[in-house]
Amino acid sequence: MPILIRGGTVVNADCSARADVYIEDGIIKAVGLDLDIPSDAEIIDAGGQYVMPGGIDPHTHMQLPFMGTVASEDFYTGTAAGLAGGTTMIIDFVIPSPQQSLMEAYDTWRGWAEKACSDYSFHVAVTWWDDSVHEDMQTLVEHEGVNSFKHFMAYKNAIMAEDETLYNSFSRALELGAMPTVHAENGEMVFQLQQKLLKMGMTGPEAHPLSRPPAAEGEAANRAIRLAEVIGVPLYLVHVSTEDALQEIAVARARGQRVYGEALAGHLLIDESVYRDPDFATAAAHVMSPPFREKHHQDALWKGLQNGSLQTTATDHCCFCANQKAAGKDDFSKIPNGTAGVEDRLAILWTYGVGTGKLTMEEFVAITSTNTARIFNIYPRKGVIRSGADADIVIWDPAAEKTISAKTHHQNVDFNIFEGRKVKGLPSHTISNGEIRYRQGALHTAPGTGRYIKRPAFAPAFHALEKIAKATAPKPVKRK
Amino acid sequence: MPILIRGGTVVNADCSARADVYIEDGIIKAVGLDLDIPSDAEIIDAGGQYVMPGGIDPHTHMQLPFMGTVASEDFYTGTAAGLAGGTTMIIDFVIPSPQQSLMEAYDTWRGWAEKACSDYSFHVAVTWWDDSVHEDMQTLVEHEGVNSFKHFMAYKNAIMAEDETLYNSFSRALELGAMPTVHAENGEMVFQLQQKLLKMGMTGPEAHPLSRPPAAEGEAANRAIRLAEVIGVPLYLVHVSTEDALQEIAVARARGQRVYGEALAGHLLIDESVYRDPDFATAAAHVMSPPFREKHHQDALWKGLQNGSLQTTATDHCCFCANQKAAGKDDFSKIPNGTAGVEDRLAILWTYGVGTGKLTMEEFVAITSTNTARIFNIYPRKGVIRSGADADIVIWDPAAEKTISAKTHHQNVDFNIFEGRKVKGLPSHTISNGEIRYRQGALHTAPGTGRYIKRPAFAPAFHALEKIAKATAPKPVKRK
Amino acid sequence: MPILIRGGTVVNADCSARADVYIEDGIIKAVGLDLDIPSDAEIIDAGGQYVMPGGIDPHTHMQLPFMGTVASEDFYTGTAAGLAGGTTMIIDFVIPSPQQSLMEAYDTWRGWAEKACSDYSFHVAVTWWDDSVHEDMQTLVEHEGVNSFKHFMAYKNAIMAEDETLYNSFSRALELGAMPTVHAENGEMVFQLQQKLLKMGMTGPEAHPLSRPPAAEGEAANRAIRLAEVIGVPLYLVHVSTEDALQEIAVARARGQRVYGEALAGHLLIDESVYRDPDFATAAAHVMSPPFREKHHQDALWKGLQNGSLQTTATDHCCFCANQKAAGKDDFSKIPNGTAGVEDRLAILWTYGVGTGKLTMEEFVAITSTNTARIFNIYPRKGVIRSGADADIVIWDPAAEKTISAKTHHQNVDFNIFEGRKVKGLPSHTISNGEIRYRQGALHTAPGTGRYIKRPAFAPAFHALEKIAKATAPKPVKRK
Amino acid sequence: MPILIRGGTVVNADCSARADVYIEDGIIKAVGLDLDIPSDAEIIDAGGQYVMPGGIDPHTHMQLPFMGTVASEDFYTGTAAGLAGGTTMIIDFVIPSPQQSLMEAYDTWRGWAEKACSDYSFHVAVTWWDDSVHEDMQTLVEHEGVNSFKHFMAYKNAIMAEDETLYNSFSRALELGAMPTVHAENGEMVFQLQQKLLKMGMTGPEAHPLSRPPAAEGEAANRAIRLAEVIGVPLYLVHVSTEDALQEIAVARARGQRVYGEALAGHLLIDESVYRDPDFATAAAHVMSPPFREKHHQDALWKGLQNGSLQTTATDHCCFCANQKAAGKDDFSKIPNGTAGVEDRLAILWTYGVGTGKLTMEEFVAITSTNTARIFNIYPRKGVIRSGADADIVIWDPAAEKTISAKTHHQNVDFNIFEGRKVKGLPSHTISNGEIRYRQGALHTAPGTGRYIKRPAFAPAFHALEKIAKATAPKPVKRK
Repeated sequence: MPILIRGGTVVNADCSARADVYIEDGIIKAVGLDLDIPSDAEIIDAGGQYVMPGGIDPHTHMQLPFMGTVASEDFYTGTAAGLAGGTTMIIDFVIPSPQQSLMEAYDTWRGWAEKACSDYSFHVAVTWWDDSVHEDMQTLVEHEGVNSFKHFMAYKNAIMAEDETLYNSFSRALELGAMPTVHAENGEMVFQLQQKLLKMGMTGPEAHPLSRPPAAEGEAANRAIRLAEVIGVPLYLVHVSTEDALQEIAVARARGQRVYGEALAGHLLIDESVYRDPDFATAAAHVMSPPFREKHHQDALWKGLQNGSLQTTATDHCCFCANQKAAGKDDFSKIPNGTAGVEDRLAILWTYGVGTGKLTMEEFVAITSTNTARIFNIYPRKGVIRSGADADIVIWDPAAEKTISAKTHHQNVDFNIFEGRKVKGLPSHTISNGEIRYRQGALHTAPGTGRYIKRPAFAPAFHALEKIAKATAPKPVKRK
Repeated sequence: MPILIRGGTVVNADCSARADVYIEDGIIKAVGLDLDIPSDAEIIDAGGQYVMPGGIDPHTHMQLPFMGTVASEDFYTGTAAGLAGGTTMIIDFVIPSPQQSLMEAYDTWRGWAEKACSDYSFHVAVTWWDDSVHEDMQTLVEHEGVNSFKHFMAYKNAIMAEDETLYNSFSRALELGAMPTVHAENGEMVFQLQQKLLKMGMTGPEAHPLSRPPAAEGEAANRAIRLAEVIGVPLYLVHVSTEDALQEIAVARARGQRVYGEALAGHLLIDESVYRDPDFATAAAHVMSPPFREKHHQDALWKGLQNGSLQTTATDHCCFCANQKAAGKDDFSKIPNGTAGVEDRLAILWTYGVGTGKLTMEEFVAITSTNTARIFNIYPRKGVIRSGADADIVIWDPAAEKTISAKTHHQNVDFNIFEGRKVKGLPSHTISNGEIRYRQGALHTAPGTGRYIKRPAFAPAFHALEKIAKATAPKPVKRK
Repeated sequence: MPILIRGGTVVNADCSARADVYIEDGIIKAVGLDLDIPSDAEIIDAGGQYVMPGGIDPHTHMQLPFMGTVASEDFYTGTAAGLAGGTTMIIDFVIPSPQQSLMEAYDTWRGWAEKACSDYSFHVAVTWWDDSVHEDMQTLVEHEGVNSFKHFMAYKNAIMAEDETLYNSFSRALELGAMPTVHAENGEMVFQLQQKLLKMGMTGPEAHPLSRPPAAEGEAANRAIRLAEVIGVPLYLVHVSTEDALQEIAVARARGQRVYGEALAGHLLIDESVYRDPDFATAAAHVMSPPFREKHHQDALWKGLQNGSLQTTATDHCCFCANQKAAGKDDFSKIPNGTAGVEDRLAILWTYGVGTGKLTMEEFVAITSTNTARIFNIYPRKGVIRSGADADIVIWDPAAEKTISAKTHHQNVDFNIFEGRKVKGLPSHTISNGEIRYRQGALHTAPGTGRYIKRPAFAPAFHALEKIAKATAPKPVKRK
Repeated sequence: MPILIRGGTVVNADCSARADVYIEDGIIKAVGLDLDIPSDAEIIDAGGQYVMPGGIDPHTHMQLPFMGTVASEDFYTGTAAGLAGGTTMIIDFVIPSPQQSLMEAYDTWRGWAEKACSDYSFHVAVTWWDDSVHEDMQTLVEHEGVNSFKHFMAYKNAIMAEDETLYNSFSRALELGAMPTVHAENGEMVFQLQQKLLKMGMTGPEAHPLSRPPAAEGEAANRAIRLAEVIGVPLYLVHVSTEDALQEIAVARARGQRVYGEALAGHLLIDESVYRDPDFATAAAHVMSPPFREKHHQDALWKGLQNGSLQTTATDHCCFCANQKAAGKDDFSKIPNGTAGVEDRLAILWTYGVGTGKLTMEEFVAITSTNTARIFNIYPRKGVIRSGADADIVIWDPAAEKTISAKTHHQNVDFNIFEGRKVKGLPSHTISNGEIRYRQGALHTAPGTGRYIKRPAFAPAFHALEKIAKATAPKPVKRK
């Protein structure tokens, strides 16, 4: 059924204005005042509310098999929780084991994701290297709409990519017009510090942040950026959690590199004191990597979002319940890493960003949706309220309030890292593909209504980099 | 007559796509494929070309009375030259003499500008301070659509604003929702160095850059930024010419300040060796402030545009002919300061920016038009190809080439700082207010077709800053 | 009587070693093991202790007339307190009123200082400018042994030096081989903020730091540094209290400038929360300028001392008792600015610097004594334990402990900003000019035993700068 | 025979003064005026000259087996050349092959070095890791006077140390009180770029710098620094050649790390254009790693020396003649890496440093001798003109001039990278262990007069770091 969103203020990344929005066949058909619309359209009254592109979360791990268990949130529950919070698309990760075929892993994840109820896409991880990986990357880009590849610089003896793999994969990504992304933590440092801490008798979750100091993230961020510089490829750093890594990004951008960074909602608000909570379950529930940090990092991340050194926000949504976290009762390094947030990201960013004056509304839209769509080249299909775009929309009620709690959230996990925080500004409606999936507190979802979104290669920055490569190609000296 | 621009690729700051553009009554009425248009529309074939928002030059000085003479370019010839180069709007400056009423000066400039043939607007300079200035600022903002005030930190004993005036004017601008802007050079340093150089017998134009070292710009940039920080107001720096000032902006943005910077086309390409030209006229023709700089500054400015530390480009178009420049034959400090460029900016930015891979096309649009429209709060009326926007459009032929020369340019001045440079990428048509004013090399202009554009106060950043001010308001300690 | 310090470890800025020290006629005559000394020498057993050059405090204001009152500590009590803490020399300030002759002021201060019981010297402030100042600077340098001139960038409408005065005085100092020094706070900002805060009803001491934000110090530091850069003169910044100013120094040093910075013991430990003390007297007792700062600045200052961006430590010792501070009961801007510390500096630096591993012992000596002697060109007469140097020595007992308190200190003021802090590491003996003036807790001083120390001009950096000036002197272009 | 150096100015790192120097039994016995000396002393007239501590070159490779050949300079010829240039001590490198015992390699090098005619010492490289390396490091530190270990981050598939080895070795060095040092270039990047360039047909020496871009050095510098940060150990970076690496050092020092950097004489003067010389032999003769760089890096290095971010200068003296360099005629990656300089360093630093005003004389001494002695813990035995120090002295004639040439130098290699450069300021005499080994152009050396110098562990910084480690040791949370 066609929908008319009436009376609201449309907020896009570039500007805001009073306008109605008309939707038909899953597409935004018109944006403006006094629209001429069919009489059968369902009308949503958005008076006093903001009509914004639905959130895109570029970093989730639904039903991830990890550290001997599987994340509790599946693609259906996870995307439903996203819709409840105003997020209408996720980009999840295909993570092949070392030696596993990329295509095989890709097929597995595609299968798992079929039940999703919002749109989704996949980054594919490169965790090892041989000729088959080289070929599969091409297949994925050219036939499967994958335009980004992920690299873990942490997790030694598991999925960590050494410099050789990074060099090969980044180079290949450049040829294919795909964005390399990295989880930037020096896995060797982390491994050594884990051993050292355990030997010292530091077995509890309070050792987790000590084993992953800001230096480990700063180092890896710099290394990945330098590799990208030498290769001439853009780079995207997931979950930047420290001033250290942020500074590396800023320095790289100052020398003209095309480097992008993502901040997690959790890292913007939560500090490392949580790991010293006397309750193991509480401390363990916060274990994720990179860990929560000292407060000054939060301040830096907000400023990074404000000044454009960071462009996107995400959650790294990866849920493990208390019984799963208990696997690390006697050894912090065995606590499954991950925290939830796909449902809360927009409310958190609005309350602590727009509500405090750190961000304008337009910047909120940019960092929750538009910039992700642009960097991963699905803009303006996604990320904007505009005629012709997919009808993925959140209607935002700036006056609505709630207190976040695991008791009331839609996420399939027994803990919420934002527990007890009050938020002001919440979705009243979430529309996905032209259908109202969330309305005034109630979800109206069913498995499988989400679609896999192909993302085309060669975003504009690649063309620019190609010109630079041509202009600076080395020339041999003629000698007798 | 309605116009259809057919077959081109519309390039906006956020993305590009094949689309036709339909114009009626001076307004863009539709953008898309297969538009339903009236049969009488004039059709422009834009096949193989880019359809972009017309350039906005936020820094020009038409017919400026300065240093004992008057700039040779008037508002008609200047805006016509702009149109020939794809620029459809200028923001010029009202510059009251110290003790002169702001309103009186404003009225004078408005009168001079009536003959303009493209749209225009005015920044108003605050060169002194008393209660009348305080009041006139309000009148200008609330009744005349002025939302920016300029401050000269150079030109001691003339229009230089001391810290006290800066503090007062910035504070007033914050109350009114208007953007303070600064010409950042330490006037005391410049004055002292001029005297010192003249005493040393350095009377020629080669002394000009020595009298205005990068340190003078870096200092003033930092001072203005610090004042803005303390007051809590955004700030815009005109003609950032040095890595020094750029670095100050980057540092300020890193600590969360809302600071913006503008680069001139000339500063991006020309270095200070021009002042040592053995021909006085040539050297003098390049005298402007801040001067052209050592090459490494150019590199930094390009990177600033790329990474978002700088947002806009301009020209500081201010024309003096050789006979005017001759006033400083025996004393470089008497050479009227100014160079032309309103006609060449877009071609220069395209050729040396997009053509080399430094910038994407979308970034080109952002820094030549969109960002200026956003910062000075006339977006999306200006700065975007979108239904509802003013029909200020440049159709850009990426294959067109020419060699820039004073002999062929439309600017009313006998010198061109880009003389002899080849550019690739030129306007084929420029449309202003829905009328084709430039077509394939020919201007079709008449005095007075341009309109004065009012710019509303309180751009979004002001609301954000207001929230911050409220949240951080000091509270007294209760003492017995 | 000759003295032999036996059994200690001599610690100099460059290295440490077990050695005895023999003193005769106020001079160190020998340093080594198995010294051949006369039988009548008094022997001090320094077993387990460190024998170090006496502290030099380059920033004190004894009996300063300021803000309508006079500092309670005079030159006798103040130098005695210094000796009790291991400080054997101070450099105080001659501060002429605007329009007052420098020589006249100098003579006045010399008179006041005659009762000092340790050696002393004077910086002379330049608070205004005319030809007499220009001449007096020469007299002071050439005949009076003054090699440094101080400039207040704060205190508008009183002793603040405008850019013009700074430029003139810095230039003159370069000619004379004297070091310009600055109190870096933007006086206009401070003045405006004071007015604003008072208007808001913020009349208590908690408004003091708000009226002097880090931005005001960062701004002035940068401005002074940029002036020094343009003129080509070295620069010394007194009481650097913020990361902001420190960063300006580091940036200047990175571009090759010879810039030096001083940290106060108080700024290294005390944060701005003191101004919100509910007791007015306590809050007011901490009022000094620049004020105590947020904690992160302390961390930065320590690192600056460690890495050499800051070279010296001082106290800005300037004492006002509670009844004097009460002058600002209803208006914080009238509270006399100043705090004590000349007695505590060394113990504070040792305990919180050496004791924590932030500094090595050698670095401690460098920043409490040697570097000051070198920068102000009285090295190696002062600042080192070496044959031929003045016998200004502190024998340091690293095991001695005490709790600092106004009740027990020797300073003539009723408050101690370090009240209640435990220090470990204290002087057991202080020797000034070869006489034991402090021994195991007891002072043995009498007025007038201190000497005025002339400081010669043209420290080595001046010769280096002269070569640079010659090499980079501008040359005119030959034109027909 | 005792020696009296009469009439000169003694220049140390801390200050300069007119003084005579009396030498007996290889030791400086007295420094001063009017010394009471035996009548049989040989008198050197140093009137108008500077008497300075002999240079210490902390980075040489005499007779190094490398890349299939052996460096042409042996320990005798090399130390003799050093003496001819005023350098009285070298620290060379023991470089075990992977899997080779450290002790075995150490013994080999000790044997080779017996013929040296000036004092010498050894850094030992850690090129691999197992328990024997762990043990041998202890033996070397505790019994052999080795207090520094070198790590190559370049040279993949040869002596490159991976992060795991770096972590282990740095940790071990901390326990032993020994300084880790690194050759900072990312070996993976270099390897990949070499392959890529060769595939592109870039086989000549002009490809050498392209295969080792500044990014490779910046990356490795940062990685080593971050490892040192996490471990809590000091770090010394050899041959810092780029602004990139320098910036990493400065940033680390700003956060309080104890990081040191060394600059090579060659990197201070020579830029990468040499690799495009049309003569293969000339281009190849400059092949060393890291390569010579674009000019702006030179400027940065000078400033680093000036402001203390860099502390030492060296040469990486490693000689290969044209016939050896020819091994890489068809493949630049096979050209033996190395250039000479041990003879020229002091004259280069004086001429281009002191002569231009970049450095004071005292700074010259600091960076050519004193700082190296302090960092490697042989101060004040070496690195200072002081009673009790080794009589390693250079008498420096500031008026002497020559043109550097391979035809006249004493180095055993057929090329000089400083060929044709005029220097002003040269040694008139060099005294080693109390013997005049170089006098007015003539060497008086014989094999074996040099001594192996043991360097004790635990320089002062280690004690400071130990205090920090103790204060910040992690503590477990008590949980039920």
